[in-house]
Order: sequence, then structure tokens, then C-alpha cells
Amino acid sequence: MAGKRVLIVYAHQEPKSMNGSLKDAAVTELSRQGCQVTVSDLYAMNFEPRATKNDIVGALSNPKSFNYAVETYEAYKKQSLSSDVVEEQKKLQEADLVIFQFPLYWYSVPAILKGWIDRVLCQGFAYEIPKYFKNGFFQNKSALLSFTTAGTAEMYFKKEYAGDIRYILWPLQHGVLHFCGFKVLTPQINYAPERASEDKRKEMVTSWSRRLETIWDEKPIDCSLSWYFE
Amino acid sequence: MAGKRVLIVYAHQEPKSMNGSLKDAAVTELSRQGCQVTVSDLYAMNFEPRATKNDIVGALSNPKSFNYAVETYEAYKKQSLSSDVVEEQKKLQEADLVIFQFPLYWYSVPAILKGWIDRVLCQGFAYEIPKYFKNGFFQNKSALLSFTTAGTAEMYFKKEYAGDIRYILWPLQHGVLHFCGFKVLTPQINYAPERASEDKRKEMVTSWSRRLETIWDEKPIDCSLSWYFE
Repeated sequence: MAGKRVLIVYAHQEPKSMNGSLKDAAVTELSRQGCQVTVSDLYAMNFEPRATKNDIVGALSNPKSFNYAVETYEAYKKQSLSSDVVEEQKKLQEADLVIFQFPLYWYSVPAILKGWIDRVLCQGFAYEIPKYFKNGFFQNKSALLSFTTAGTAEMYFKKEYAGDIRYILWPLQHGVLHFCGFKVLTPQINYAPERASEDKRKEMVTSWSRRLETIWDEKPIDCSLSWYFE
Repeated sequence: MAGKRVLIVYAHQEPKSMNGSLKDAAVTELSRQGCQVTVSDLYAMNFEPRATKNDIVGALSNPKSFNYAVETYEAYKKQSLSSDVVEEQKKLQEADLVIFQFPLYWYSVPAILKGWIDRVLCQGFAYEIPKYFKNGFFQNKSALLSFTTAGTAEMYFKKEYAGDIRYILWPLQHGVLHFCGFKVLTPQINYAPERASEDKRKEMVTSWSRRLETIWDEKPIDCSLSWYFE
């Protein structure tokens, strides 16, 4: 939709990968609509995933015993977070929609993207006590997980293997996105593109583009326990 | 137990933290028993969390389109993984028990520890198709998550907030540890040490030491869906 701002947080090493194609398709379709699209290409940026003292510029509140959560909260308030974190916070602050594009690694996001979550979503910026969940800061924003898997859909729904793909989504969608108040859109899951035919792979990209044509009309999912576990 | 080998994968920035104290207590108690204890102190090592080409020494199988899983699998077989990954794999290979000691970040492990999981547990070393779950490689090893939380126990069991702490454990215990065949021991969870009194904090450390006195007699948890979701 013209004028809307979109941030794509993208975590794949290879531009020619399925994740790269899905990211490119999103940029193309959303730009065509007149959206302002920003991509944080984490590997290309060599984004720092480690949560350390380096995230605070200048003096620490308590240099004798380093507490990352406390120090980054203070640094946020004093505007003394490191510039790479501030840059990502600005992009997120301006976005109406945030798309996370990644391959599933060990039932979760790759470490480089976990680092983005750990470092960018600090207290004060992304939440406050008790400003979270239904009182969360980002209620005017939508977010969506778009990811690929190594295993097939059958594997992710086989009781003895992965139980249900939604179990895996709980920490990310509920614990991160819903916690910060985001409206969570239905995840875009592409199962096992590496085992798929070229035609099937093209179809994955096309159906993502097609979905994005009407993404602004979508209703968020109901972020209840029953969505995940019933 | 004398002669047993233990690997502690430790992810906290501050030696004086509760996580640091719990790690120290484990080293002390297990050494007292005559175990050989190795600590991977991830922040002190400045452990690399990013999964990149740098993990493969020498030529790639397919330099035109980088696939991390495929390349690291090939590199494992050709013994051409980067030395920091090989070093961790050796420590893990020799261990009878692996303890992961960390603060819960966003319903999961900190990015630096996620990077250890992403990079060390490559195909060929940690699993093979179909060598996983009950046919997994690490059936002669036990593993245990020992972590602290920011929120109180009440918060983690409040339906509208976190549902149940076990939901959070699913990706880590089932998707990582059980997948690789580990016998999973009951997690050691210390809720909200930062909100606790000094006495209560000491008690957390003491009760961990005490548990470790008989850790070799413990039966693993039943890694079924019902342990997590019923």
C-alpha cells in the first residue's frame, strides 16, 4: 500500500538461495505497491550477534558487575547505545510491517537473527514493565515470520518428530513478537525447498508475491494458547 | 563420579553473575567428585555465533551458491571445518555430560549460545539421516539446561503470559538435545535471581551443588509430547 514502510530483516548468506529469492520477491512486490522497503541484510552487514559491553557507549552504570539488560536499558534512556543497535531501532520504529526472512536453524532463528532480537529489542525501546503483550509498544505494527525448513511438512507434523510446527513458533511469535505488542500475521512457511523441483520452487516465490498483494488487508492471528497448542 | 567427563557450555558476560556462580559451583562440585570438567566460556572466548563461509577451510563444494548445511557437512567429512568448531566438537565428543548454563533471552538461549548450537552440531558430527532422535549419535551422553530467568515462576506459568515454561523448552530440549540422541536431564531453572534476596540467591547455588552430588544417578526425562504439553 502506497506510503507504508516495511522492514525486512533478512538472514541468509547466499543471495541465490530460496530465502534470497523470497526477500527479493518481497522487495519487488512491496515497492511496486509504493511502499518504502528497507532491508537489513544481516550477513552482508556482518551484524554482531553477541550481547556485550560494546553495546554501551561511554561509562557503565555498574562497571563492577555487568548486567546486560540493566545497562542497555540505561543506555537506551541516555541515548548511549552503540550505533548499529540505534540504526536498527530507527528502522523498526519507522516500520508499519516487519518481515523476518530466514531458514529455520534448530527449531529457531539462526544465531545472527537471534542476536538482532537480543540486542535491538532492549527494554525502554521494545517494551517496558508493564507495557507488553496487549499493552505492548508496537501495537501499530504488524510482523510476520517467513522461513524455509530443511525437513518436509510431513516431518514437522509427525507427532514423534516435531509434534506440530506451531510449537516451534511459540517462543518467536508469542515470546518475542506478541510480547512487544506486534500484530502477528500468519507465518509464511516454505517446507524443504531444497528437496523441491524447480517448478515447485518457483511456485513458492510466486505464491509469496501473490500473498503480499493483499497483505495490508490481512487480519492478525489470534495470539492465544489455543492457536499454538490445540 | 570419578573419571567422568563434563562439558559446561557457559554463556554469561559477568563472572560475578548468578550464572557465573552456578557455573563455578558446578566446576567445584564435579571436580570434587573426580570428574574432568571443561568449560567453554563463550563470551570470554569471543565465540563466533555467525554461520558463514569462514567455517570451511579451503575450497567450497559449490562456491557459486553457498549452502551452509551442505558445505559444513562436506567439510566435516573432509576434516576441513574451522579450528574453533573442531575444538568444540572434540570437547563435546569426549563428554559424558553436557551442561548448558545461560540466562534465558527471549524465551531461548542468548545468540552466542545459539551460534554454538548452529555451528558445532553440524550434520555428520551431531546427526545423520536417519540417525537422530532415538537413533541419535549422542545416546551415551546426558545433557541438561541450567538457566536463569528475568521473570518470576508465577509469570512463566501464567496462562496469558508464558503458558508453561515447558513450552519454551521444546525447541531446545526436543529439537536440539533429543534430536541428537542425548539423554535429557531435568532442567535446572532458577527464576528471577535478580529479584531474590541474598539468602535466596545463595540457596539457588547451594541447591544446584547438592543436586550435582547425585547427578550420575538421575534418570532422564521422558522426551514425549506429553512431558511438554499435557
